[in-house]
Amino acid sequence: MSKLIRVDMNTREIRVEDLANNKAYGGFGGRGLTSMIVSREVPPTCHPLSEKNKLVIASGLLSGTTAANSGRLSVGAKSPLTGGIKESNVGGSGAFKLARLGVRGIVVEGQAEPGKLYCLVVNKDGASLEAADEYKGLKNYDLVEKLREKYGEKVGTVSIGPAGEMKLSAASVAVSDTKGRPTRHAGRGGMGAVMGCKGLKAVVIDDAGAPKMEYKDADAFKAAAAKLRKALQAHDVTKPDGGLAVFGTNVLVNVINEAGGFPTRNFSDGRFEGADKISGETMHDIIKERGGNTTHAGCTTCIIQCSNIYHDKDKNYVTSALEYETIWANGANCGIDDLDAIAQIDRLCDEYGLDTIETGCAIGVAMAGGVKEFGDAEGAIELVHEMGKGSPLGRILGNGASVTGQAFGVANVPVVKRQGLPAYDPRAVKGQGVTYATTPMGGDHTAGYAVATNIMKVGGYVDPLKPDGQVELSRNLQIATAALDSAGLCVFIAFAILDIPEGLEAIPEMLNARYGLNMNLDDVTEHGKAILKAEREFNAGAGFTRLDDRLPDFFKEEALEPHGVVFDVPDEELDELHDF
Amino acid sequence: MSKLIRVDMNTREIRVEDLANNKAYGGFGGRGLTSMIVSREVPPTCHPLSEKNKLVIASGLLSGTTAANSGRLSVGAKSPLTGGIKESNVGGSGAFKLARLGVRGIVVEGQAEPGKLYCLVVNKDGASLEAADEYKGLKNYDLVEKLREKYGEKVGTVSIGPAGEMKLSAASVAVSDTKGRPTRHAGRGGMGAVMGCKGLKAVVIDDAGAPKMEYKDADAFKAAAAKLRKALQAHDVTKPDGGLAVFGTNVLVNVINEAGGFPTRNFSDGRFEGADKISGETMHDIIKERGGNTTHAGCTTCIIQCSNIYHDKDKNYVTSALEYETIWANGANCGIDDLDAIAQIDRLCDEYGLDTIETGCAIGVAMAGGVKEFGDAEGAIELVHEMGKGSPLGRILGNGASVTGQAFGVANVPVVKRQGLPAYDPRAVKGQGVTYATTPMGGDHTAGYAVATNIMKVGGYVDPLKPDGQVELSRNLQIATAALDSAGLCVFIAFAILDIPEGLEAIPEMLNARYGLNMNLDDVTEHGKAILKAEREFNAGAGFTRLDDRLPDFFKEEALEPHGVVFDVPDEELDELHDF
Repeated sequence: MSKLIRVDMNTREIRVEDLANNKAYGGFGGRGLTSMIVSREVPPTCHPLSEKNKLVIASGLLSGTTAANSGRLSVGAKSPLTGGIKESNVGGSGAFKLARLGVRGIVVEGQAEPGKLYCLVVNKDGASLEAADEYKGLKNYDLVEKLREKYGEKVGTVSIGPAGEMKLSAASVAVSDTKGRPTRHAGRGGMGAVMGCKGLKAVVIDDAGAPKMEYKDADAFKAAAAKLRKALQAHDVTKPDGGLAVFGTNVLVNVINEAGGFPTRNFSDGRFEGADKISGETMHDIIKERGGNTTHAGCTTCIIQCSNIYHDKDKNYVTSALEYETIWANGANCGIDDLDAIAQIDRLCDEYGLDTIETGCAIGVAMAGGVKEFGDAEGAIELVHEMGKGSPLGRILGNGASVTGQAFGVANVPVVKRQGLPAYDPRAVKGQGVTYATTPMGGDHTAGYAVATNIMKVGGYVDPLKPDGQVELSRNLQIATAALDSAGLCVFIAFAILDIPEGLEAIPEMLNARYGLNMNLDDVTEHGKAILKAEREFNAGAGFTRLDDRLPDFFKEEALEPHGVVFDVPDEELDELHDF
Repeated sequence: MSKLIRVDMNTREIRVEDLANNKAYGGFGGRGLTSMIVSREVPPTCHPLSEKNKLVIASGLLSGTTAANSGRLSVGAKSPLTGGIKESNVGGSGAFKLARLGVRGIVVEGQAEPGKLYCLVVNKDGASLEAADEYKGLKNYDLVEKLREKYGEKVGTVSIGPAGEMKLSAASVAVSDTKGRPTRHAGRGGMGAVMGCKGLKAVVIDDAGAPKMEYKDADAFKAAAAKLRKALQAHDVTKPDGGLAVFGTNVLVNVINEAGGFPTRNFSDGRFEGADKISGETMHDIIKERGGNTTHAGCTTCIIQCSNIYHDKDKNYVTSALEYETIWANGANCGIDDLDAIAQIDRLCDEYGLDTIETGCAIGVAMAGGVKEFGDAEGAIELVHEMGKGSPLGRILGNGASVTGQAFGVANVPVVKRQGLPAYDPRAVKGQGVTYATTPMGGDHTAGYAVATNIMKVGGYVDPLKPDGQVELSRNLQIATAALDSAGLCVFIAFAILDIPEGLEAIPEMLNARYGLNMNLDDVTEHGKAILKAEREFNAGAGFTRLDDRLPDFFKEEALEPHGVVFDVPDEELDELHDF
């Protein structure tokens, strides 16, 4: 049985629905489920912090199975950051445990009485809402420790820190990793603020005693899962001694810097003179020297192992899952080349429950506005503490790059749909620029990761510096990604399935074997399209037009060094992206 | 000759154009001229603080003449607050003096080097740009005193305070009144921020030695002007012993409170228990007792004299032009019933260069978010000081109600197009609600002042509590107002011309006599329509849709006491407002 748990925070009533009988939602998981529910049930013009908004937490269609890298969790709502629909995708152990309990999704509705906090406990017996006022103001690590003390060491957690309680638009939803630490975050779009305004401090997932996972055809599933696993283990990017496993996602610092698309000091340069000091290669050596772990699976069922464990100079644990985007946002984008400082910022963001990308973007804009000097690592750390404290300065930054730009009178604010842009300058990685501009998610890199084909030459090659072919590339990736996000699969499997046909085939085969379906690759594509269409419709209802599918003018007007390029994909082509 | 002065802040070059030869702009003044220039010359997607934005300052078509109440000045640009086109309308002496010098408009283009400030001096010999770094950070009263010391006691000034220099979205442009004090403000939409980001601290207008005003038919003008004057002196609202002259605009406190449309404590109630303490009647007695002035002409050529001079308990000058909107915003809307405190806030807003409406709206939202208690007058004063200092808290508030709501996680934020709503609850004065929703200016009361017909029964009567007829009412008022704003006439003449046909006829007659035209009333209406259309087109180009022509959902869902009404003008009707 695939269950949908509805939690009414007004009445504290919980209802469980069977998704098998639900024609609208039954075929969807992960982002598919969050986006279908939000687009059907949330009035698009409602205030994101009003009780009409709904927070949806969903495991993927393949979550809970033995499929490699199937442990992604989707958190969706109307975003307080963008004002549009949002799905924020996260790893860790949550999706796996929820799916093991037969739970495809949790819909959090209404709002608790102001000031009251609750914890939702999901286990083999069902779900219950427990008072959680004692956890008020707790940071994520402390919170999770207390939850594990109370509910057992093996529970998974989905939680918010102080930022979510304060309803900051950059507030994340933390998900515990395979070691039980709150290091994986549904960072983007302020999902933590929506959770906070509902009065939900945490979801505890106890999958002890969960029934055995059911497969319509267990053997076929096993065979299909093996095909995917084989592809992942064969591809250069994802194999056990590949770039992601050895250097983590941070392998990209040198790659993107070399490509001249490494946004530096608030997107004013394409190369960072301090790149070497924060690169994956340097980080690898530091981690090894200090007894951390360079090759770590942060997400249940992950075989790529891009995560890591980072220690300080005294060999004490600082943080885990220190990723490229985080290192870029709070490194090069702020002119900071001190990896220990960046690791500390990552830990603070995990503690306070903040999106590391939006945080770094906001700090970069604040630096452009003269709040701190570019390169001031101590200053940046201070600013993150301000965010966690909820001081007025922290509330500016904690509401993202767009508000920060307005507060400090900065004109060059790198956002789309008010969401801070990630770690690839759209002028030098134009396919990525198309994704930023056109995804319903706002400035987002994973929604259509054109870097793969623009830079890493995976799935073919489209010259990153030229406008030609970028729209088609981004369109195909956006559709495929929506489908992967519904399946609960990690976006990194895209590298393998773009290049290795057997890996790609495994996707519908696994879905068919799990649920007794008869999908082919075209059906998977249609599945992705249906999700994108629902998201676009919601955004149209919220007032978005083709003019929201644009980069800020400065990307079109101010050339980026070293290539001297502007973003020159024509608006008319951007408008065609969603013609499918 | 009607001149357009173009000032390029990049090169500090000044060009003068003759508007007589300009087909696109020649027939427009005031808001007509600002909106035509902005809509044609400013890229609608540009960042409002980028050098592509232009600040336009324009006198009206009838400014400089002997026409009563023809001294309104328009300040226009792309708004940093709304992201759309903006005209902010202000009295004082600026329009008259500019027009006397033959200057219909000033277009400020480009941006000075960051940190540099300039003063534009306009006199009978032309215009020049002078370094003004010495005035950096000066508040408006000090600034104007220094400017008058340097340029003479009789000059008019247009200036920004610290808020404009800091580019806050609630920053106003101050215009000196008939006594030379910077008490009249183009408050709405952050025109002060645009002036600040261009590096223009002040415009000094010295009309000494200006040529005699030219009329194509001086006698006809005299006769027409007399008709308007007579109508103003006859109408109950505008006559010498009428409500506006005796109690100022603040006569409205009791009227609107009685009507149950007096927004109280961030639009959560329609009546304020402290109304009597801040009413026009109470203020009149206080002013009289302390030797102030209840019947004062703040604007050159004004015969209505709605302005006042407010003294403190020790009979010392505090502020002038203490208006209804200011008293409401920083009074009832913040739960404050202390008129002396409100007068102090008004003075501080004039000093720092802040829109009193946006300021009060932001403080009301901040109070709803727990920053201060409702009713805390000292707290509110503190908050205005924070804005003037540009502390982080001040930068939140100084960027308006919308940013403040986001910063403090407040869902009920009374804004349209991100601009704070003025002093009439749209649920109980529904015609006003239609104007808020549909004017291209964002939540604005003067753009179509339906209060006249809804509450004061001027120009007929449309029941304020019912949706019927409100769209037609607002449409007609919006068109007429655009035309009046182009003429440089005060919106308060509307009371007289709506009820007295001779007053209305005087408008085209004065235009014809001044310029040798042959306009009739239909032509005046077409003139208004042309302006609104240009503004709508700009906003469409900036990404606005019909969904931006809406009130926040809470006005439609949460009933307002005492009448228990919601805003129920159908969306479809709102969408028809601009069908003309």
